[in-house]
Amino acid sequence: MNISAAKLDGMIRVGLVGATGYTALEVARILIGHDRAELTAATSRSDDGKPLSEIHPSLAGRCDVSIEPFDAATLKTKCDVVMCCLPHGASAETVRRLVDVGLRVIDFSADFRLSDLATYEKWYDVKHPWPQRVGKTVYGMPEFFADEIATADVVANPGCYPTSAILPLVPLVEADLIETDDIIVDSKSGVSGAGRSPKLGTLYCEVNESIAAYAVGSHRHQPEIVDLVGRIAGRPIEVLFTPHLTPMDRGILSTIYVKPKSATVDQITDCMKARFTKSAFVHVVDHLPATKHVAGTNHVQMTARAAGNRIVLVCVIDNLSKGASGAAIQNMNVMFGLDPTTGLR
Amino acid sequence: MNISAAKLDGMIRVGLVGATGYTALEVARILIGHDRAELTAATSRSDDGKPLSEIHPSLAGRCDVSIEPFDAATLKTKCDVVMCCLPHGASAETVRRLVDVGLRVIDFSADFRLSDLATYEKWYDVKHPWPQRVGKTVYGMPEFFADEIATADVVANPGCYPTSAILPLVPLVEADLIETDDIIVDSKSGVSGAGRSPKLGTLYCEVNESIAAYAVGSHRHQPEIVDLVGRIAGRPIEVLFTPHLTPMDRGILSTIYVKPKSATVDQITDCMKARFTKSAFVHVVDHLPATKHVAGTNHVQMTARAAGNRIVLVCVIDNLSKGASGAAIQNMNVMFGLDPTTGLR
Amino acid sequence: MNISAAKLDGMIRVGLVGATGYTALEVARILIGHDRAELTAATSRSDDGKPLSEIHPSLAGRCDVSIEPFDAATLKTKCDVVMCCLPHGASAETVRRLVDVGLRVIDFSADFRLSDLATYEKWYDVKHPWPQRVGKTVYGMPEFFADEIATADVVANPGCYPTSAILPLVPLVEADLIETDDIIVDSKSGVSGAGRSPKLGTLYCEVNESIAAYAVGSHRHQPEIVDLVGRIAGRPIEVLFTPHLTPMDRGILSTIYVKPKSATVDQITDCMKARFTKSAFVHVVDHLPATKHVAGTNHVQMTARAAGNRIVLVCVIDNLSKGASGAAIQNMNVMFGLDPTTGLR
Amino acid sequence: MNISAAKLDGMIRVGLVGATGYTALEVARILIGHDRAELTAATSRSDDGKPLSEIHPSLAGRCDVSIEPFDAATLKTKCDVVMCCLPHGASAETVRRLVDVGLRVIDFSADFRLSDLATYEKWYDVKHPWPQRVGKTVYGMPEFFADEIATADVVANPGCYPTSAILPLVPLVEADLIETDDIIVDSKSGVSGAGRSPKLGTLYCEVNESIAAYAVGSHRHQPEIVDLVGRIAGRPIEVLFTPHLTPMDRGILSTIYVKPKSATVDQITDCMKARFTKSAFVHVVDHLPATKHVAGTNHVQMTARAAGNRIVLVCVIDNLSKGASGAAIQNMNVMFGLDPTTGLR
Repeated sequence: MNISAAKLDGMIRVGLVGATGYTALEVARILIGHDRAELTAATSRSDDGKPLSEIHPSLAGRCDVSIEPFDAATLKTKCDVVMCCLPHGASAETVRRLVDVGLRVIDFSADFRLSDLATYEKWYDVKHPWPQRVGKTVYGMPEFFADEIATADVVANPGCYPTSAILPLVPLVEADLIETDDIIVDSKSGVSGAGRSPKLGTLYCEVNESIAAYAVGSHRHQPEIVDLVGRIAGRPIEVLFTPHLTPMDRGILSTIYVKPKSATVDQITDCMKARFTKSAFVHVVDHLPATKHVAGTNHVQMTARAAGNRIVLVCVIDNLSKGASGAAIQNMNVMFGLDPTTGLR
Repeated sequence: MNISAAKLDGMIRVGLVGATGYTALEVARILIGHDRAELTAATSRSDDGKPLSEIHPSLAGRCDVSIEPFDAATLKTKCDVVMCCLPHGASAETVRRLVDVGLRVIDFSADFRLSDLATYEKWYDVKHPWPQRVGKTVYGMPEFFADEIATADVVANPGCYPTSAILPLVPLVEADLIETDDIIVDSKSGVSGAGRSPKLGTLYCEVNESIAAYAVGSHRHQPEIVDLVGRIAGRPIEVLFTPHLTPMDRGILSTIYVKPKSATVDQITDCMKARFTKSAFVHVVDHLPATKHVAGTNHVQMTARAAGNRIVLVCVIDNLSKGASGAAIQNMNVMFGLDPTTGLR
Repeated sequence: MNISAAKLDGMIRVGLVGATGYTALEVARILIGHDRAELTAATSRSDDGKPLSEIHPSLAGRCDVSIEPFDAATLKTKCDVVMCCLPHGASAETVRRLVDVGLRVIDFSADFRLSDLATYEKWYDVKHPWPQRVGKTVYGMPEFFADEIATADVVANPGCYPTSAILPLVPLVEADLIETDDIIVDSKSGVSGAGRSPKLGTLYCEVNESIAAYAVGSHRHQPEIVDLVGRIAGRPIEVLFTPHLTPMDRGILSTIYVKPKSATVDQITDCMKARFTKSAFVHVVDHLPATKHVAGTNHVQMTARAAGNRIVLVCVIDNLSKGASGAAIQNMNVMFGLDPTTGLR
Repeated sequence: MNISAAKLDGMIRVGLVGATGYTALEVARILIGHDRAELTAATSRSDDGKPLSEIHPSLAGRCDVSIEPFDAATLKTKCDVVMCCLPHGASAETVRRLVDVGLRVIDFSADFRLSDLATYEKWYDVKHPWPQRVGKTVYGMPEFFADEIATADVVANPGCYPTSAILPLVPLVEADLIETDDIIVDSKSGVSGAGRSPKLGTLYCEVNESIAAYAVGSHRHQPEIVDLVGRIAGRPIEVLFTPHLTPMDRGILSTIYVKPKSATVDQITDCMKARFTKSAFVHVVDHLPATKHVAGTNHVQMTARAAGNRIVLVCVIDNLSKGASGAAIQNMNVMFGLDPTTGLR
């Protein structure tokens, strides 16, 4: 029952760079159930030669890939596409090497998400290793950019929080239904978003049975939301973004406070429904969605409510799936001409 | 080690009406460690004669009170003060009977919190059983109303969400530092706030590993915040309030978005610090507080941050303690001339 | 993206009887990702006409089946196989009606698991509605009974705890490596095993942050383990079984204390490995498995350790998947000649 | 509201060595509510000068002690007793220095718990820094050794798992009611027992929603249980001990399988009740106790059930309180002639 043996010829061969974290594990899990793609290589700075299933014991008996050191040329012989799960800064340099050998890349970092170099360098506080490419890489949200993704060599996989905010905001901004200078995004995320490196702040006994705000007014996903929604709106927008760490493994719920221009809540709802009628994963629902309703899936649920003189949008995703690895597989499906839903739940 | 045996003469004798829920258990727990008060009676519509420690197994060996049917005259012989933990509507009628026999009462329901009868009857959708008393009962927040509480026959114990919003807002409204027509309170509460009656919505597998908004724009604690802060501001205010159910037993974190008139975040912080300098339980802190920092205690932590053109206030309490039973004990301490902190942690 | 529209011709048509609980939801979820089967009917005593996605909001936009009243003849027109998710007693009667109209049935209840009528009626304290069938129904564990399952009209889907105990014990008993009169099974289960009916004992605030033993020496899964392992051993065996409720949604970990006859821990391990070499879902691992390693999958991980004069076996499953709905799909796959892993992760 | 200011003269002055972990925080918390003792010093290898409330934000506004470097002579001027919360090996050396300057010490490590040097050095794999003291230090369980504790200069505070096993086993072994060569202790602990150092294995997303056995047959608390119970039995005993990591902050539940000689479960129960009739914190209960019933308290609940030819004992404690810091305060109370329950809940 190992992947290589069980899968058929003609599969998309997928490489994983930076294979020890939660997003990499989620990619591996999804690929096990994917009929048209298989994991063929995994790299990490450490653990050379170690089976991936030792690093992620949930893969025991289900995956026979072992860690190898990163080498772009070797990956080129084994893979059709590479998922790059490295931190920002480190990622851009690696992506360039992969592109140089002719590989297509889905980049999980923020390095190519923003359209403006100065904004990137200010918020991420690094010199960009491949500045020429900034602003020329498609943002991997097939709901809006499927055509560009289909032919891209590099796809900038969206951030988790931005996914939960951009999806509900874009239709309303496109249709000019809301004010764009007074948007508040109050987001609540599960802990997996903080990664798998041991830190005091993500120890079980620090975050269990507790909720906390962090990075108030200073989180790097704020400019990502502003950039994407602004690009679509065709003018600058303003967003106040507050993330919260919530005691659960997975899930993001964003509560978004917007001011309607004159639209009613029904018009807002209809606008969202119309925009996503062909998006297999986005559901405008009547109930108030909980993160549990989409946990473990690539689906999105959103709804709108009137409250005072504002509209409250509520949007839920699974941060590891639609917020990271599921979106990457969805992008890969689009890049290789498959139905976007292939292998996804 | 039972209470009656272990405690000394001259104790405040406390009765619990509606003793089967979480707030009643929390009162019982606190009283076990209280040097100047003891639980002497507990009533419930059911379970007549059953030891309270059978209903709440955490009290086993630590409490020898048994359930008795409600009878105001009997309670008068056993108690100096009664904590009434009944639902709204039912509570007001019971409070009246207790007052009629001369007992002092701390009422956990919303029946006497609002100053306006019409507002109460609209939001709670019941005919008030004791309308004459509405608007004439002190709101049990000793940080603001200690003198009235000290002499009150009935104290309206505050709601959990309102506690987390009123405490940080009042100093800023008093000092006229913020706009009062654009306040957003985004609150996240642990599940114990939903009570101990078996319901699908509070089953473990429904709410665990999940966060959800509920009652968006329609929660009954919204008028309570508006009423109290507005009374102190001396003019109507507007609040958009969104509660969320968070997968944890205890705790409320409120993220409050306010527009400063011209005040800086430092002036806002100094204002809060100055207001609570004599309040033993309220701490204006530098760090971003988590609910865990106050869980199991009667303490409050709050802080302020600048973000865009707004100030973000973050306030945490334990919903069962400062948000209910701890506040009730604090009120009792004030009513009987004790130090407010007696028996509380 | 609804099921009926998206799926192809030639699919296995699946009915769900008793569609409101967690095991039914898990069946529906798995079927959404199953290429060869689709959900075509769902019944419940209540909620007639209600979309299944209203009862289970995680199905919103992903399933267009609605609840209908139970009628065997109607189900016969819509289904090739029915998953019966009713409680014991009620289930047997329903299964008989479904068999009478010619439907194949996978029964989630305990009604046909035990081989002995008297044992069933003693432990379940009911008169069996279809006694003739007891002892003549295959136990739905394809690892041991695949041939019988392939041709069965009724399959008794195994209990969750028994699955976690029978799988590791059977190889050792078959090979006569352990004493059969001194086996202790100490099991820890997630809360979903307790069902979706509102009860005090499964409220979030009762079981969260807490572990407890229950039904010590009296749980109905004890005779199921004894019956199955004893049948295979060819002689009576004795098992002491203690279940514990553990604060997590999913998962069972069974710690099993056995006395080896003379076998070493390596011989025990080799025996288990040899037995399951062809079982795609059962993995004998070197690490100490955690329930998280199999959560959300139909996989089983088990290991053995020497300790004093005993061997300690540790086995983990997902109680909702391999312990219920995943096993049912695995059984269905075998009944319809598919690869056992089809549609499962 | 800082401790030094609020507390009265004549208090026991308590020092904390190794103040950054969870047991130290728990000591600080308990002392805040203790009428007869106060925290007067805290040391750590790092964080010199930092307020303890920065390391533990739950102490904000409630504690004005700051970290100082360890110096025995300085502690002697500020403290009457020191709680030493260091790891084994490191602790013994520190305890000696404290004793040398005339301080009384409660040692949280395992360094002085075992009566036999060779056993210590084998299981802990270190050379003991103060071997002369091994076997001459009282085990800090006031239920059995109150007289020795009252006059001790050093108290070896018990391990968390051993507390949950020794308390129920001692009465039965003393009364010769059970076989002593076949005892199985299957324990489940909350995560705080694993400490506050960042490690992969205690990250939230590794242990949340998961239960796992660890150190099967090799945990260092096994010889501690054997030593203590054996000492009281007056002969060697055998214990198979399996710890499990359970997804909760606090609590240990031990399920203990014993073989009665001829005693019935009622005789076993009566024996335990008789033994603990004067122990304020130990409760032999009728219900099956959950860890939640004692969480946040120094209390112990235990019960017995018959199952097959064995008796199953179930015992619950809070691992941070009765399993560590609460026991330490209880010991301190006994050492200073206070009622053992002072300041404890």
